[in-house]
Amino acid sequence: MKKVSVGVDIGGTNTAIGVVDELGHVLTKDSISTPDHGDINRYINDLAGAIRKLIDNAKLINEDIEVLGIGIGAPNGNYYNGTIEYAPNLSFNGVVPLVDLLKKHFEDIEAVALTNDANAAAIGEMIYGGAKEMKNFVMYTLGTGVGSGVVVNGDLVYGADGFAGECGHTTLIPGGRLCGCGALGHLEAYCSAPGMKRTAFELLAKYNAGDSLLADKSFKDLNSKMIYDAAKQGDKVALEVFELTGQYLGQGIADTVHHLSPEAIFLFGGPTAAGDLIFEPTIKSMENHLLPIFKNKIKVLKSELDAGDAAIVGASALAWKELG
Amino acid sequence: MKKVSVGVDIGGTNTAIGVVDELGHVLTKDSISTPDHGDINRYINDLAGAIRKLIDNAKLINEDIEVLGIGIGAPNGNYYNGTIEYAPNLSFNGVVPLVDLLKKHFEDIEAVALTNDANAAAIGEMIYGGAKEMKNFVMYTLGTGVGSGVVVNGDLVYGADGFAGECGHTTLIPGGRLCGCGALGHLEAYCSAPGMKRTAFELLAKYNAGDSLLADKSFKDLNSKMIYDAAKQGDKVALEVFELTGQYLGQGIADTVHHLSPEAIFLFGGPTAAGDLIFEPTIKSMENHLLPIFKNKIKVLKSELDAGDAAIVGASALAWKELG
Repeated sequence: MKKVSVGVDIGGTNTAIGVVDELGHVLTKDSISTPDHGDINRYINDLAGAIRKLIDNAKLINEDIEVLGIGIGAPNGNYYNGTIEYAPNLSFNGVVPLVDLLKKHFEDIEAVALTNDANAAAIGEMIYGGAKEMKNFVMYTLGTGVGSGVVVNGDLVYGADGFAGECGHTTLIPGGRLCGCGALGHLEAYCSAPGMKRTAFELLAKYNAGDSLLADKSFKDLNSKMIYDAAKQGDKVALEVFELTGQYLGQGIADTVHHLSPEAIFLFGGPTAAGDLIFEPTIKSMENHLLPIFKNKIKVLKSELDAGDAAIVGASALAWKELG
Repeated sequence: MKKVSVGVDIGGTNTAIGVVDELGHVLTKDSISTPDHGDINRYINDLAGAIRKLIDNAKLINEDIEVLGIGIGAPNGNYYNGTIEYAPNLSFNGVVPLVDLLKKHFEDIEAVALTNDANAAAIGEMIYGGAKEMKNFVMYTLGTGVGSGVVVNGDLVYGADGFAGECGHTTLIPGGRLCGCGALGHLEAYCSAPGMKRTAFELLAKYNAGDSLLADKSFKDLNSKMIYDAAKQGDKVALEVFELTGQYLGQGIADTVHHLSPEAIFLFGGPTAAGDLIFEPTIKSMENHLLPIFKNKIKVLKSELDAGDAAIVGASALAWKELG
């Protein structure tokens, strides 16, 4: 009997679902729209149907499987209550008791659990990835926003209300850039993919850099992939974007180290594909901000989760963690 | 049989020792010099002798006591190894195996444990003080430096190497004031007692404030108590020092909340005697920096530990925590 869990990643436009084995391999996957109709019961019916169908598919491939759990990653997911609370990018209002609603469809399944996507990624790293042997580490996920998951003594830190691990909203620059959350100077406004774009525009303005490869892109059009491509071609502005992004990120990571003394910081997401371009300035800046007792001790590592399936795989790991 | 533990607080010039009961009451206390001769074995002999003498004293008062543990708070104290590591203010070089050395003198005592003073204070708050019912909180100690202790799920966070909880060294102002550790812009350079003095001098300069009550003090002479006294008399510079210190501290605390989602932040130390003068701007600033999901949820509380004996009492609590 092959034991599997189901990973569900609820995003703003799509909900991805996968059946994942104990090694983190996705046996089969599918996705449905995350609706904008705001009717949670209709969505839960659709989601439960899609999960059932996927499990049936998995049994067609390998009939000898047993589904032990369902793990869900969702924005503003509260682990303690199994709720999604006031998620700005979803159409469901207020507090949604997602785990309770889903459990009614899956009374045969032992564990149904929910957390936010960055926490799920951290658990994924611990169960399947580079943090298997680690008891204390922090995961930073760099994308449209910056999320994080904090692991202490082998357990994810949820804190008093289930929302711990929002390192993307620590203040880097007092009175600095407007963050999507409404506050000023948060890390996310500098180190997310849109934050890199903002840095590029600041530098274009600073250097009056009409000869930059980025100079013909509108603010709407420019993205972090274009910045990476320009950097690979030696574009000075693009290279400085990575340098500054690393400086910002290293400062934030040093704050995390001072709080938690982790063995490692894992970085996940698009910008990590740039390798040394982003890791070198990040590590250098982190070291500059650290107390002597922490210097040259903290590993900054690329996540070992496969980028394409990480959200599903991370969510599925939550179920194993519940059962373990 | 009354159960007691011994609390030892190793400071730069004095080592304070107390016999403490389970309610956190100091039954008897004493102190010896923390020597500058650098000879750890001589110091351990003196310390062990003083502890024995104090236990004998306690038995004279109440012969029916049983000493279950010794808890030690020390700068750069490493809980995992029981060592003091490269403490800049102590004369002992390198890594000192303090617990092992002390245990040789107290083979009859069940628990001998060591951590840094801020961690000890956090444990004291949890065992005897305002955090008795809390599982997730953070303690900030404001004094010559700024220390902190982080509690998650009812346990102190030591991290991968035993040094977690250095929130005083998070970066508040990139490229800002020189911190005692050598880095720039750390919280400690703004929110410690000397940090408040530095703020006062900046404001005297900014406003050319010859009429301030603080204008006749040299940099060497001015201290945070004088700033408090001037603030009580309505001195504008002194009042703004508290306002700014609160703004700085609130920013740092918000970073801590984003990492850990604690139920409460406890503040300990001299500046907290100023009450609303420091708490109001701290709370206001914290709220301004927080994500909406954390707003109006986090308590910022004054430590309930008695200022005079807090270091001893906190250290003694470490022993109870070991036994519990």
